[in-house]
Amino acid sequence: MTKYQQIAAEIEMYIEENALQQGDKLPVLEALMAHFNVSKSTVTKALDLLEKKGAVFQVRGSGIFVRRQKRKGYRGLLSNQGFKKEIEGVHLTSKVIELEVMKPTKEAANHLNIGPDDDVYYVKRVRYMNGQTLCLEESYYKKSIITYLNKEIVSESIFDYIQKGLGLKIGFSDVYLHAGKLKEEEAKHLCLESEAPAFYVESIFHLTNGQPFDFSKVTYHYEQSQFFVQTNSHFF
Amino acid sequence: MTKYQQIAAEIEMYIEENALQQGDKLPVLEALMAHFNVSKSTVTKALDLLEKKGAVFQVRGSGIFVRRQKRKGYRGLLSNQGFKKEIEGVHLTSKVIELEVMKPTKEAANHLNIGPDDDVYYVKRVRYMNGQTLCLEESYYKKSIITYLNKEIVSESIFDYIQKGLGLKIGFSDVYLHAGKLKEEEAKHLCLESEAPAFYVESIFHLTNGQPFDFSKVTYHYEQSQFFVQTNSHFF
Repeated sequence: MTKYQQIAAEIEMYIEENALQQGDKLPVLEALMAHFNVSKSTVTKALDLLEKKGAVFQVRGSGIFVRRQKRKGYRGLLSNQGFKKEIEGVHLTSKVIELEVMKPTKEAANHLNIGPDDDVYYVKRVRYMNGQTLCLEESYYKKSIITYLNKEIVSESIFDYIQKGLGLKIGFSDVYLHAGKLKEEEAKHLCLESEAPAFYVESIFHLTNGQPFDFSKVTYHYEQSQFFVQTNSHFF
Repeated sequence: MTKYQQIAAEIEMYIEENALQQGDKLPVLEALMAHFNVSKSTVTKALDLLEKKGAVFQVRGSGIFVRRQKRKGYRGLLSNQGFKKEIEGVHLTSKVIELEVMKPTKEAANHLNIGPDDDVYYVKRVRYMNGQTLCLEESYYKKSIITYLNKEIVSESIFDYIQKGLGLKIGFSDVYLHAGKLKEEEAKHLCLESEAPAFYVESIFHLTNGQPFDFSKVTYHYEQSQFFVQTNSHFF
């Protein structure tokens, strides 16, 4: 973690601890520089990062303000693998259904930029949030990058292992969303009836160097499918 | 539009016109400076903007690469009001069901930061994509900001009018997603049976100064609910 990333994390903690609300003003730049004893450019970079993350917004000539969601029970769609710890009081567990080395499906090969004969780790698991069925997850990990997985690892946080165990740097992701009706097998795993609503999230995760390493298809229990996204201005 | 925003739009057009694919490398910084005849800082700012938007990714010491979705038929969840024109060949129309000035619901008042006695424009419409039912939309516009709407305006793009007609600068938005079962009235408007899957998108749109001006609840026809989000690295 570089200095400015650390300052960003500390400002986020400050927002959390002081229970600041959407629209609350942060201390001015000079105050933040003095408080953290860092240069203007470090504070500026930290604030830019927080703005990208949707944690603050900057109004020219007016100041820096907090962004916070107003609703309880919504999970960040894009930040659930981010540096923010799991939402407080939320406990995630997994039941591993399948873990094997295999050839990729056509779809997985396409998304992972590999050939039909390259190996992938295929992981299928049901995830639970505080004991409640949250989702069914199928993931394809490019084996040339994610060289080793075992049952113990995939029972826990695979992304933690990828970063800390394999030392890889996770970059951006492409996320596809849609709703539909549960297929019979999905319904069974989620303890719902067939044709019940499904919220599908498919993601392609890349390393910071742009290489895709994981294609994952997650089917959420519709009653657990509350997601939150904070966007930045893309308007011209 | 400032200079760097214009360069960003031109780089995006260049990507489009040359049909560059995910992972394709852009010309180096110096080439872009020469091509557009602008300074290094302008090109850098343009590229940062495109990175924020998820149109490119930068690999330190290696270059700038294109990001593009691989699937057809998915709409940008966060960029559909952006400077990118509507997806080619897509024609949006609206049927206005209701347009009136009223007091906000409790939920709308909360999201718009107004009191129960403040006025809102309430707009309810069904939207069609190439003639197919796309979604049911209910929006609450803060009347103190969106001072005037009429049936003609709400039959077209309200956001176009807000920017061009009222001269307001649209900033960030908070977006809440979930799946569920269609209520009877929603089903009727979407020409689906009750209890069919629904994809709900609720958004609070803010001006660049942070003021919320629109709270909108959109219920998508599940067969038209393909969305795409490009995320940036929020990993530390």
